Amino acid sequence: MNKILINGIEETRIDVRDRGYQYGDGLFDTIAFKNSKLQLWNEHMQRLQAGCKRLSLNTVDEAVWLDDIKKLNLSADAVIKISISRGISARGYAYNQRDANTRVTAAYSWPDYPADNQQGIIATFCNTPISINPALAGIKHINRLDNVLARNEWHDSEIVEGFMLDNKGHIIEGTMSNVFCILGDELYTPLLEQCGVAGVMRQQVINLANELNITVNIVDISQQNFLQMDALFITNSLIGLWPVKTIVDEKKSVNFLQNNLLDEINSKLEKKL
Amino acid sequence: MNKILINGIEETRIDVRDRGYQYGDGLFDTIAFKNSKLQLWNEHMQRLQAGCKRLSLNTVDEAVWLDDIKKLNLSADAVIKISISRGISARGYAYNQRDANTRVTAAYSWPDYPADNQQGIIATFCNTPISINPALAGIKHINRLDNVLARNEWHDSEIVEGFMLDNKGHIIEGTMSNVFCILGDELYTPLLEQCGVAGVMRQQVINLANELNITVNIVDISQQNFLQMDALFITNSLIGLWPVKTIVDEKKSVNFLQNNLLDEINSKLEKKL
Repeated sequence: MNKILINGIEETRIDVRDRGYQYGDGLFDTIAFKNSKLQLWNEHMQRLQAGCKRLSLNTVDEAVWLDDIKKLNLSADAVIKISISRGISARGYAYNQRDANTRVTAAYSWPDYPADNQQGIIATFCNTPISINPALAGIKHINRLDNVLARNEWHDSEIVEGFMLDNKGHIIEGTMSNVFCILGDELYTPLLEQCGVAGVMRQQVINLANELNITVNIVDISQQNFLQMDALFITNSLIGLWPVKTIVDEKKSVNFLQNNLLDEINSKLEKKL
Repeated sequence: MNKILINGIEETRIDVRDRGYQYGDGLFDTIAFKNSKLQLWNEHMQRLQAGCKRLSLNTVDEAVWLDDIKKLNLSADAVIKISISRGISARGYAYNQRDANTRVTAAYSWPDYPADNQQGIIATFCNTPISINPALAGIKHINRLDNVLARNEWHDSEIVEGFMLDNKGHIIEGTMSNVFCILGDELYTPLLEQCGVAGVMRQQVINLANELNITVNIVDISQQNFLQMDALFITNSLIGLWPVKTIVDEKKSVNFLQNNLLDEINSKLEKKL
């Protein structure tokens, strides 16, 4: 499966002058379609609208997206990727607010994730630092060169994720996921005020922890503190939650043991979705 | 005039799955074609190749670009914009090094710059901070959302350029230009190790200053020091050099007087191009 609509019409090509291609001037979002249902749809819509506001992009009504997705005629689990770019403009960074957005709605086959990942993955650290900009932090914009460079630092298929650090050595996120740490009976997750993407699944974990009266510390986490945590797990909209069983780098590997709090969060999150 | 070649063929549309559109995964360069000549062609090629190396993008031979430009059949002064993106890949940040690049070669009409700009422009400061990432600093990649947001902070057509600061309050560059300061008989221009684009025209000014035995200090410059300079000028490949006559912000305006060293550099740079 691989079906793409551009502005609601089945089509695979866009104008090369689109500001998405010229400057990465746009946003995207990736949504799980599972058991005939769009997972966390309202939450994805809220983040997309917040991103539009931040970039002064004209928004697209929820009904328009839902109509596009209906046209995709999905008959199996799928990944839905939706994007908005600022459309075509004259050469140069200035844009005209009246210019029409480009809206892309695409369905991809559900990824063939190894079942083992739900028991725990192997992760590493990336050398490429994450891009710092408070004006762009949190939203899922199309300027993703830092993630691209970081993700392509390793080619060992046993390694599932790489953690990215900011210029002060704080752990921020994985190349395609957010990260949580467990220490004692509390959760820790990085502050995303200067950089990083505030994932929809990350917010679900924070909400769940609040319901369970588990403290979530949203703070700067150094690499050293990160490695001293009791347990780690990553989240995103497609994978849900995967524990980290091992972190490897050139010099050593650190293994994390089974953790009861992680197991509890994992099973309760699964029931909630 | 507005002619576009994609991979050497006249065409205006690209595949929406191109990583340029998906992640801003690519580079571009803007070259002046004046008096039937490509200005500073070798320098542009060098920077583009350096950018390819940094992003692990397969390079495109100079002869291929020149062949494309020949096909554009230019009969008047023009802006040549060339770009390389990493081409189509499966969904996700990982790429396959064997995937084919997308190469875009486009000609745009020479901009109708007001002749007055050569005497001096009005500039302002932008609130949008510049994105910090040493892995991406200096090269002209497609992740330009910070420039886009900064350029669209003002709509007064009298204001020609806006200066962008880093998260420590250092002046880095204009939204579309590099910046130089004159204090006494020395030049100052911002360090671009953490952010910013190292423009081809910026390097020409540095080279010229070296030939003229003028000291060029490549250093961090605070906003306060910036405003205390004797004179300022901006550079890029299309405009060459424009003096800054006035900087305005919400609270005040600062006017710069005629400066002999600036006049000397301006006239010698013009002769050199």
